[in-house]
Amino acid sequence: MRAAMAAAEVGDDVLDRDPTMRELEIRVAGMLGATDALWTPSGSMGNLIALMHHLGRGESFLAPAGAHVLDNELGTAAWLAGGMPRPLEHDAGPGKVSPAAVRRAAAGGVGPYHALHTTLLCLENTHNAAGGTVTAPDEHAAVVAAARGAKLTVHLDGARLWHAAVALGVPPGALTVGVDTVQVCLSKGLGAPVGSVVAGSAEFVANARRLRKMLGGGVRQGGVLAAAGLVALDRIDRLSEDHDRARTLAAGLRERGWDAAVPQTNIVLVAVADLAGTLQRFEAAGVRAGPMAGQVRLMTHADLTDADIATALSRIGPVDGTAGRTDGRRSPVRPGRR
Amino acid sequence: MRAAMAAAEVGDDVLDRDPTMRELEIRVAGMLGATDALWTPSGSMGNLIALMHHLGRGESFLAPAGAHVLDNELGTAAWLAGGMPRPLEHDAGPGKVSPAAVRRAAAGGVGPYHALHTTLLCLENTHNAAGGTVTAPDEHAAVVAAARGAKLTVHLDGARLWHAAVALGVPPGALTVGVDTVQVCLSKGLGAPVGSVVAGSAEFVANARRLRKMLGGGVRQGGVLAAAGLVALDRIDRLSEDHDRARTLAAGLRERGWDAAVPQTNIVLVAVADLAGTLQRFEAAGVRAGPMAGQVRLMTHADLTDADIATALSRIGPVDGTAGRTDGRRSPVRPGRR
Amino acid sequence: MRAAMAAAEVGDDVLDRDPTMRELEIRVAGMLGATDALWTPSGSMGNLIALMHHLGRGESFLAPAGAHVLDNELGTAAWLAGGMPRPLEHDAGPGKVSPAAVRRAAAGGVGPYHALHTTLLCLENTHNAAGGTVTAPDEHAAVVAAARGAKLTVHLDGARLWHAAVALGVPPGALTVGVDTVQVCLSKGLGAPVGSVVAGSAEFVANARRLRKMLGGGVRQGGVLAAAGLVALDRIDRLSEDHDRARTLAAGLRERGWDAAVPQTNIVLVAVADLAGTLQRFEAAGVRAGPMAGQVRLMTHADLTDADIATALSRIGPVDGTAGRTDGRRSPVRPGRR
Amino acid sequence: MRAAMAAAEVGDDVLDRDPTMRELEIRVAGMLGATDALWTPSGSMGNLIALMHHLGRGESFLAPAGAHVLDNELGTAAWLAGGMPRPLEHDAGPGKVSPAAVRRAAAGGVGPYHALHTTLLCLENTHNAAGGTVTAPDEHAAVVAAARGAKLTVHLDGARLWHAAVALGVPPGALTVGVDTVQVCLSKGLGAPVGSVVAGSAEFVANARRLRKMLGGGVRQGGVLAAAGLVALDRIDRLSEDHDRARTLAAGLRERGWDAAVPQTNIVLVAVADLAGTLQRFEAAGVRAGPMAGQVRLMTHADLTDADIATALSRIGPVDGTAGRTDGRRSPVRPGRR
Repeated sequence: MRAAMAAAEVGDDVLDRDPTMRELEIRVAGMLGATDALWTPSGSMGNLIALMHHLGRGESFLAPAGAHVLDNELGTAAWLAGGMPRPLEHDAGPGKVSPAAVRRAAAGGVGPYHALHTTLLCLENTHNAAGGTVTAPDEHAAVVAAARGAKLTVHLDGARLWHAAVALGVPPGALTVGVDTVQVCLSKGLGAPVGSVVAGSAEFVANARRLRKMLGGGVRQGGVLAAAGLVALDRIDRLSEDHDRARTLAAGLRERGWDAAVPQTNIVLVAVADLAGTLQRFEAAGVRAGPMAGQVRLMTHADLTDADIATALSRIGPVDGTAGRTDGRRSPVRPGRR
Repeated sequence: MRAAMAAAEVGDDVLDRDPTMRELEIRVAGMLGATDALWTPSGSMGNLIALMHHLGRGESFLAPAGAHVLDNELGTAAWLAGGMPRPLEHDAGPGKVSPAAVRRAAAGGVGPYHALHTTLLCLENTHNAAGGTVTAPDEHAAVVAAARGAKLTVHLDGARLWHAAVALGVPPGALTVGVDTVQVCLSKGLGAPVGSVVAGSAEFVANARRLRKMLGGGVRQGGVLAAAGLVALDRIDRLSEDHDRARTLAAGLRERGWDAAVPQTNIVLVAVADLAGTLQRFEAAGVRAGPMAGQVRLMTHADLTDADIATALSRIGPVDGTAGRTDGRRSPVRPGRR
Repeated sequence: MRAAMAAAEVGDDVLDRDPTMRELEIRVAGMLGATDALWTPSGSMGNLIALMHHLGRGESFLAPAGAHVLDNELGTAAWLAGGMPRPLEHDAGPGKVSPAAVRRAAAGGVGPYHALHTTLLCLENTHNAAGGTVTAPDEHAAVVAAARGAKLTVHLDGARLWHAAVALGVPPGALTVGVDTVQVCLSKGLGAPVGSVVAGSAEFVANARRLRKMLGGGVRQGGVLAAAGLVALDRIDRLSEDHDRARTLAAGLRERGWDAAVPQTNIVLVAVADLAGTLQRFEAAGVRAGPMAGQVRLMTHADLTDADIATALSRIGPVDGTAGRTDGRRSPVRPGRR
Repeated sequence: MRAAMAAAEVGDDVLDRDPTMRELEIRVAGMLGATDALWTPSGSMGNLIALMHHLGRGESFLAPAGAHVLDNELGTAAWLAGGMPRPLEHDAGPGKVSPAAVRRAAAGGVGPYHALHTTLLCLENTHNAAGGTVTAPDEHAAVVAAARGAKLTVHLDGARLWHAAVALGVPPGALTVGVDTVQVCLSKGLGAPVGSVVAGSAEFVANARRLRKMLGGGVRQGGVLAAAGLVALDRIDRLSEDHDRARTLAAGLRERGWDAAVPQTNIVLVAVADLAGTLQRFEAAGVRAGPMAGQVRLMTHADLTDADIATALSRIGPVDGTAGRTDGRRSPVRPGRR
């Protein structure tokens, strides 16, 4: 990947277009079934641009509770994109909302002049805070159809869409059917150092390019980063190894008495009684973890081997005392919870 | 009231202060136990000013689901005050949240640099969408203490605070203990034609006056409106008549087979199977009603007599066919519901 | 006027429409040659609503230097309406810009994707900071035509449009030809206690009503204020008395050695060497004045008589010492000047 | 540079800090005499972050007419940073404002509650739109002192600060004395593919990091880009070659009858009668140019040789017909001009 970056052909992507950047954008658009696409420095910027495009003042958007756009982007969906969020319970399983819930929440939609107008549904697949949970093509299609029926536009935060596609054994485009815009990350599991791509119609991408410039995300010789993205796209299939290792990790934790959920992709959530204390214990043991939805989040990625998993399990050891013990009821991700 | 308006002494409230306006502001501040107060053209502006004062970019605020600042102010709490909302379930009864829920939702509060910071709790008493439900002084104090413990500031949307005070038989100031800011309406039940008051510290009011000017709410000879507000404040006790009539109305509806909740103040919510159809039926019958939280909302106010209530019940008549029939389970106000 | 307010028929202008409010709005729309109009609590809100309607992110607007929307509305045209201002020199006389200047500044207009797009011209008649200066119908028409040719929309801040019309002896509608939106004040010279009206197309007014609700400017029984506005509209012609008194005041000041400009309407600007000191001196003498564009601003209005003017001149007295002496060159209103 | 990028040590700059990124930031902070610094994907984001840090609602900032933050960042200084701009004439030479102009414009500063407050001066060195013009250390210091005296904070847009330092033969830190924040670009003349650095106090950088995350400018393994930046910093001295070639280019153009200004750094502005036509002619001739302040802008950079300059002059040829002929008076950069 570093070699590809060093050899990348570049232009000035602010003025014209950088050729390597364009190659990346066109390739991703094709994979996602979109007309066109635009590189952004981060997934947060990709989501933000999509929300700025879709939302106006006096509008609200629906998103499953715990969505990245709700909890992890410093509120920009609200103050910068102008949308009042309406978080939805995961009534169709972890990370998932039912078509009925979408219809009910959108009821009214664009009501009288003095009402907040609900105009957008923002989905997330895999859903990070719910534990990297996967929405299947038919589930996705039904929710999108409900949104369409309620005259909502649909944005898909697909920062981890590659994981969902690999876990399901379907092409990424099978998970973007019917959406207006979708954002996918090239870093994270895919391993490129920097960057995401946001895709949609030609009209959207034209506006997105302008919004990217406003946010300060227009870069000059971006081809050096795009080259890494192109290499990353060739490696999607290897995400299945990360998923395997996540299952191994979770099984090992359960054997040691921890309340670890069975992972659907590369995220392992561990319910604990004492979150802060457990995170400290893990860090002291040399195992990197973070908080997510009130639980400990562990992730597997390209730089980890089977031996690393074994080492981590050995360092973590059995659950002890009260720190990690829970009452067996995992707290779901819900509005107003963290 | 019109006579008081016609006789009001006025000044230029943009440049100096209008004397009648100041009299009103000082009187309301005293009633609410605040240092100072400021008149605003509407309750929405009063709430918005308070939220603009308290919130910054990258911050979130907690509010009970269905709160006016969440659902009825066109999202300005988000895009204009800069706050990402986190709606809370009514886990302590209709319109009310528990201290534990506040503590749990605020957990983390001001976390790492890249996290949304939860900094504000916005309460509402009475809670409009829950049906004019009342929070008692001890409940209020416990929730405020939980918020304080989590280092949150507290704003109280008291558009209907007078109703709560009358229903509870306590002075309004008993319901504002510990809050940073509070907004109360002079129109609605109190009967002044235009205006609200937002109260807090001297520092808050100084900034609020500047924010009011920004929003275009600075008026010149506002004393004509303030005079009406002063008269309205003398009439708070008569709200108990509205509460009595609301109970009479709800009882009459239940006798006629309608699923009407027992009102705590002047709002009667009626659960129906067909909301739009029932609203049309009421309108055709000459009974003014509106939608609220998926139900029919009826309100009593100063211009209604006992005879009006009887007439309304007679016009509405018994529930018939399927329009008004429900399965007996009233849908609570919850995040993501309307 | 107070009697009219006391007798006003009212409704709920947030939900339906207040009948007296509607009467006022329709009458003003007719006077200004607009399809419809909307009452707002202040002229600042009327201007802000128009700019929010016209401007989007990444757009700039042109306005004569010293315009109210630039210097006197706390920057809301920028941060709230989203427009980057481009102040224009008064190259066609005080308060006025030439068609050529508009064409030159608009050049490019909507340029490449990464450029700021100039989309709006905001005029002001009379121009407050330039001293209540009047733009005549033919001058107005030529500037508007230049703006139209450059594909700009046009908003007219006509807070003092009545003064211009009376000074020119033309109907107000002669000064609004070709504009998209116009704002006029009912307070100030006209004498209503509170309120302005913003006029334009039906589509504009529908959106303006929504924006007014967002800003907290929706009021309930606004008819009490509209009634005053209706009375004020009957009294426009008496503004000529204010203009006469302003000329008398300016002449008297010049006789006493002050550098007072010849007023075109009801504003007298006095150039002084020591602005703060002179304002203090005037205040000590019981003459109300304020700073405007680096000069002392005096205004005449309905509550002043000929005797009041004589008293003011007597109290001010001759220019003395250095406080009021200038070098004879009046500083024009220019970008970057105050 | 590509080799350095390929070999860069990286971390996760969103969660912790990327080591190469930190090395770059600390080195730049040292060069600029600042406590700390932060990498950003673009100079526009660096400026925007500084303005968001300094400005609040209801505040205005001063900047020389034609400044990048005024004309080339899609108005984000206004709608996103919240500042109402007050452009200043170049009364101290092209690209430069006098201390007196700053004092005069700032007069009032923080005035009464209902006034716009002037709180920030934003300088630019070199000034791009004025033709890459240089402000010397003593001029800089005098203007900064005037701003300080008027209680303004000062931000320096130093996207081309390296050019100014090389042209003056002073260290970059000599041109940042007294400022609160400064932004410098690593791309453009310095040749790194992507990135800028914004520097200031530790408190500023802590907030800037949060603001960068909001804007979507937080990147993961940014070290690959920082490595290029470190190499670029070693090459600052070679900018003198670009300046030499710009002078050669301008002299050659004047020999051929073009109205080309004598460049102070690497920007050559050519005044023409027909801007669009001349740009088309240059493009047809294979010479890349763009519009700037109503003139043709040509730039020299690291990828150009002496032979390239000769080729460009030969291709452009003598001024012909009317396209390039002017009346000899170059239009200065002024407010309201483009």
